[in-house]
Amino acid sequence: MSVPDESARIALGALPGDVRVLVWDGVGEIPPHGHEIEFFVGRFNTRPRRETLESLSRLQVVQLVSAGVEPWLSVVPKSALLCNGRGVHGGSTAELAVGGMIAMLRGIVPFAMAQRAHRWEQRFTEGLDGRRVLVIGAGDIGTRIATAVRVFGANVTLVARRSRPGVRDVSELRQLLPSQDVVALAVPHTDDTHHLVDAEFLAALRDDALVVNVSRGGVVDTEALVTEVLDQRIRAFLDVTDPEPLPAGHPLWDAPNVLITPHVGTIRGWEERAYRLVREQILRLRDKEELVNIVGERY
Amino acid sequence: MSVPDESARIALGALPGDVRVLVWDGVGEIPPHGHEIEFFVGRFNTRPRRETLESLSRLQVVQLVSAGVEPWLSVVPKSALLCNGRGVHGGSTAELAVGGMIAMLRGIVPFAMAQRAHRWEQRFTEGLDGRRVLVIGAGDIGTRIATAVRVFGANVTLVARRSRPGVRDVSELRQLLPSQDVVALAVPHTDDTHHLVDAEFLAALRDDALVVNVSRGGVVDTEALVTEVLDQRIRAFLDVTDPEPLPAGHPLWDAPNVLITPHVGTIRGWEERAYRLVREQILRLRDKEELVNIVGERY
Repeated sequence: MSVPDESARIALGALPGDVRVLVWDGVGEIPPHGHEIEFFVGRFNTRPRRETLESLSRLQVVQLVSAGVEPWLSVVPKSALLCNGRGVHGGSTAELAVGGMIAMLRGIVPFAMAQRAHRWEQRFTEGLDGRRVLVIGAGDIGTRIATAVRVFGANVTLVARRSRPGVRDVSELRQLLPSQDVVALAVPHTDDTHHLVDAEFLAALRDDALVVNVSRGGVVDTEALVTEVLDQRIRAFLDVTDPEPLPAGHPLWDAPNVLITPHVGTIRGWEERAYRLVREQILRLRDKEELVNIVGERY
Repeated sequence: MSVPDESARIALGALPGDVRVLVWDGVGEIPPHGHEIEFFVGRFNTRPRRETLESLSRLQVVQLVSAGVEPWLSVVPKSALLCNGRGVHGGSTAELAVGGMIAMLRGIVPFAMAQRAHRWEQRFTEGLDGRRVLVIGAGDIGTRIATAVRVFGANVTLVARRSRPGVRDVSELRQLLPSQDVVALAVPHTDDTHHLVDAEFLAALRDDALVVNVSRGGVVDTEALVTEVLDQRIRAFLDVTDPEPLPAGHPLWDAPNVLITPHVGTIRGWEERAYRLVREQILRLRDKEELVNIVGERY
């Protein structure tokens, strides 16, 4: 098997003696014994060429440590399984989405400012109870966001590329938008989702709707969003932006009713969780058990 | 039936013609026809004398619009049912507890400060995934907090006055404390819970543990907490304090790693939800159906 770097090898820890580990990211020169790799671990942003992976005649599994996989679909040979890091970042990314959502609705940052001024300024805010929340993307992150906000009394609609029980089809999106109080984005960034949230999407939302983006900056047309937030028509919690990092002086920084965190959906210790998953997958392959996190058609 | 004030009567809306509504808080003089009251609606902080309620010979139900009921236990005649507002504030209070918890762990306020300075300062924080969260109180609020943080990967222990499946007995508390990363308080303030979180309790917690209080200020010994937070040994998110409002100049305001909101566990529109419950309860009584939210022994 291979892992992309030395820190990954350390995070992986000890493996049974019959599992040999090479350090290779799939982009640099193939190392000695590289052609014997059966289990390849990839970093989302370091993608080998298709020909490289096709040249590994014993390759059975490409395991990513990210939730997103789309750019990899075109480089993994049909003969190999593609597995993702579903579950590694999902909890923490959903947590940030819900935390930012609650911070916006419940005024946590303004209250923290009042605290600095020693001011006890009791005023009741809005909250999720009885509000309509649309979650776009019904993968690990989206379903966790939906489950959590339901606990607080929100009426949740999940939307994904194809409908299934409890999930509406993305074709219904435009009809759903006008009734939503909160829209949370939990989709991968693909050709299909690029600028999904554009001027028309935003115009369909009611005044004061809250847009939450913890997916990728490119899912939102930044220019359209800036127009709406500067008009104070739409509010936003953004953990991802386009461009990223957001340059000093960008209009989003000071836009009213916008809360920004710097792409911190994952948390400290994610490598430990990721490589625990990788270790389990390798042992499953060795023991001829079924692997988990095999990439299907869901988002 | 009676409701405590005119705004409650308005929130209650239209009722069937055979239901007569008096405005009376149970403290002032008994109004004409007051002795015919079968269904009495009370405000948590406006408590009649026991003799007054006992003099209402047709009284069947005392309905509170609060979650807490303890001070009322001693004034409601044994012949009447006591019902609370469980579910009215639970979602929003649990939401605030979880929002404040996530804000503390994920650095949302510091990131908001960086935003003001136009600084994209990516640093991965801690989060709930894999952390131990102790929720004290297994009523509506506590169980909602537990359910929500489990979605983000936390290992949750619920504690209440008496153990039941999934809930540990409060007698086990001292053993449980040393292993917790977060302790959330969701108990009523009673003689039993007054200063539950005292110097000894706090000393049993590990360094950097986070205390979340959305119950009542008096559940925490403020002086003991101040000592620990000024030592930067313990962190806190407090929606309730003792004293309350917290006076300007109180050491908690500027204590490091303390986030304070001004007792805003409920949200706008709570009266509408509360009186929807009251209306349903009255109709249940009239139709001889079983009422909900009958107060048992749980907290």
